[in-house]
Amino acid sequence: MKKLFLKKGEDKRLRVGHLWIFSNEVDTAKSPIKDFAPGECATVISAQGTPVGSAYVNPASLISARLYSSRPDTPLDADLLRSRLARAMELRNSLFAVPCYRLAFAEGDYLPGLVVDRYHGTLVAQISTAGMETAQDDILSVLNDLCTPSGILLRNDMGSRDLENLPRYTRTATGSVPAEITLEENGVLFTAPLTEGQKTGWFYDQRTNRADFARFCKDKRVLDAFCYVGSFGCNALRGGAAAVTFLDASQTALDFALRNAGANGASERSVPVDTVHGDALETLQQLKDSGRRFDVICVDPPAFIKRKKAYHEGLAAYQRVNRLAMELVEDGGVVMSCSCSQHLPAEDLHRTLLYAASKAGVHVQTLIQGHQGPDHPVHPAMPETHYLKSFCVRVFRGRS
Amino acid sequence: MKKLFLKKGEDKRLRVGHLWIFSNEVDTAKSPIKDFAPGECATVISAQGTPVGSAYVNPASLISARLYSSRPDTPLDADLLRSRLARAMELRNSLFAVPCYRLAFAEGDYLPGLVVDRYHGTLVAQISTAGMETAQDDILSVLNDLCTPSGILLRNDMGSRDLENLPRYTRTATGSVPAEITLEENGVLFTAPLTEGQKTGWFYDQRTNRADFARFCKDKRVLDAFCYVGSFGCNALRGGAAAVTFLDASQTALDFALRNAGANGASERSVPVDTVHGDALETLQQLKDSGRRFDVICVDPPAFIKRKKAYHEGLAAYQRVNRLAMELVEDGGVVMSCSCSQHLPAEDLHRTLLYAASKAGVHVQTLIQGHQGPDHPVHPAMPETHYLKSFCVRVFRGRS
Repeated sequence: MKKLFLKKGEDKRLRVGHLWIFSNEVDTAKSPIKDFAPGECATVISAQGTPVGSAYVNPASLISARLYSSRPDTPLDADLLRSRLARAMELRNSLFAVPCYRLAFAEGDYLPGLVVDRYHGTLVAQISTAGMETAQDDILSVLNDLCTPSGILLRNDMGSRDLENLPRYTRTATGSVPAEITLEENGVLFTAPLTEGQKTGWFYDQRTNRADFARFCKDKRVLDAFCYVGSFGCNALRGGAAAVTFLDASQTALDFALRNAGANGASERSVPVDTVHGDALETLQQLKDSGRRFDVICVDPPAFIKRKKAYHEGLAAYQRVNRLAMELVEDGGVVMSCSCSQHLPAEDLHRTLLYAASKAGVHVQTLIQGHQGPDHPVHPAMPETHYLKSFCVRVFRGRS
Repeated sequence: MKKLFLKKGEDKRLRVGHLWIFSNEVDTAKSPIKDFAPGECATVISAQGTPVGSAYVNPASLISARLYSSRPDTPLDADLLRSRLARAMELRNSLFAVPCYRLAFAEGDYLPGLVVDRYHGTLVAQISTAGMETAQDDILSVLNDLCTPSGILLRNDMGSRDLENLPRYTRTATGSVPAEITLEENGVLFTAPLTEGQKTGWFYDQRTNRADFARFCKDKRVLDAFCYVGSFGCNALRGGAAAVTFLDASQTALDFALRNAGANGASERSVPVDTVHGDALETLQQLKDSGRRFDVICVDPPAFIKRKKAYHEGLAAYQRVNRLAMELVEDGGVVMSCSCSQHLPAEDLHRTLLYAASKAGVHVQTLIQGHQGPDHPVHPAMPETHYLKSFCVRVFRGRS
């Protein structure tokens, strides 16, 4: 394996555990990045000459290299992948009774650039870096060994691949893959579109927050805003909700939400379920103007802050949508507010809720602070890996 | 009601929702603090002459006044207390099947200075301010109305009462109160000492974290360090632990832990349970030196940082104890690390774990970030009310 030399002091962050090496941290005099093939493995060496570990390199990316092992001269081969994926799977199998989970969460599982979601016998992988793309055959073969899936879908159509100069594509890599996946989470049953769905088809990261949400929903009228295929609302149904309203900009998503509601007792228990189709901010405003109110509301928008530059604009969007939720909820009701924006720290979201409360003329108490579930481990040296946060607040109207 | 005038700009923090007025924020020319009786209620007025709300005053305290209502001229009477306590109870009853919970969490429930824990028919109240002390009769009568308890214990022996120039005492205020309380939490049964126990006898704040902990314990050898009456270890037993070791500095606490282990299936299932008596840091070191290892460890120390001044010393203690836990846990095992130090932000504890990992020669991934349970609501404008945080990390030995 070739050597990638760092500039003086640039190993410090890596010694603490961070896995990324930026292009300006490489000693390009001693190891020109352009000499590396995209995805080529290298031993990383500090300016003092001590090895830091093994990383894969991509000359096309701003993140020039990502460490995948603390040992030098260690190729990213089937053995290493098997060891990482096996211990990732061991954790998930100990936590979840049903094989429906995020099997591998990239840096959080010491597998930079690789995400794998498991839906019973179907695996959906996302490869976001040239290094992992190079290891694709080994990844597939190890996944086949460990999980004996009926099929593996490569859902490599993310925008982040552009940053690595990788083409976007979706393809069935092994076996056969259904158009829709079924899964079970918190004892709730779901069907979701696979090739046509968002990301890998499902968002396992909200599992814990959905279970928390359901605890507030017994006998309550529930609004699931930005519902996608109805995950929060269906957890609410299983929790005994009296009525559920699904709101989304996608009619396809709403159709799935209705099917999922049916599969989780809405029809048997004759629970009124309705859908609202349209832009969330607009339709929330319309619901408010029409005088509709709810006892419990979930607000789970897409990342409003996709880049650091978009922070203030995105924050304003979080403020607006949470203010509307607080205006739509009954006195004493509960709003769960989520953000998957990596660039929005939890305390900033909390402050935004306080601000939204003041604008809505309510006051709030925070009951639960939530995070991504345990199948999305956080790397403690990489704040970037902690992206999902939620707050469950109780809302009181008027002065008290 | 008298008026308490603020200096210019000092209403700003209060408008956002904070409830405390410090002595240097009062316009003592217009309203000398010494003119107020300890606990006297007043309408708070900004420098512009607009009312901010109603507060009780204590000339003896650094926190001169605490707001308990956003309305002016509102006495802290039975009506106000009933409204606050009823809505606090409504939340708890909706969340918990059994009446065992923190019924009132001071500022988090807009009841500054009042904490009430409920153990089935027994209530334990802690009054920490002169304002609440003055309202004591109303508090007791409202609690009797709402909960019809068999007895209410006033556990007013906290050090914080010194700051309010209040005497420390413990007394049975109404009915009769047993020497030991029994309670159920997460389906686990406990007995704890009441008048001789810590604080109100039990720490409901860890309920959610204990449930999370138990998920990692099936068939595992578990260490419950700083165990008090064995709360984490007994949750582990209910979660199917293969063996549990309780460690505490108090032999009385260990005796309760053993009784609680017995009540939660240790004897029926013949699960080996043992105790280690002694200072936690010393005994953890001895366990390590003797070669004992565990699969899952909980570290739940008392607040090592009681004052801001003690930050660095306390942080060093957190580092030591977590390093020892990481040295005592098997490869692939789990450590849950808790801190109830209000002055230690969650991210600082997280960083401490990373540092401890580096000292222990292990690396970690963070599976769960926990907080105080929903019967300890956080006031979003008062970071002081968010004091409990925990991290559940998986520990890997050696380089990988």
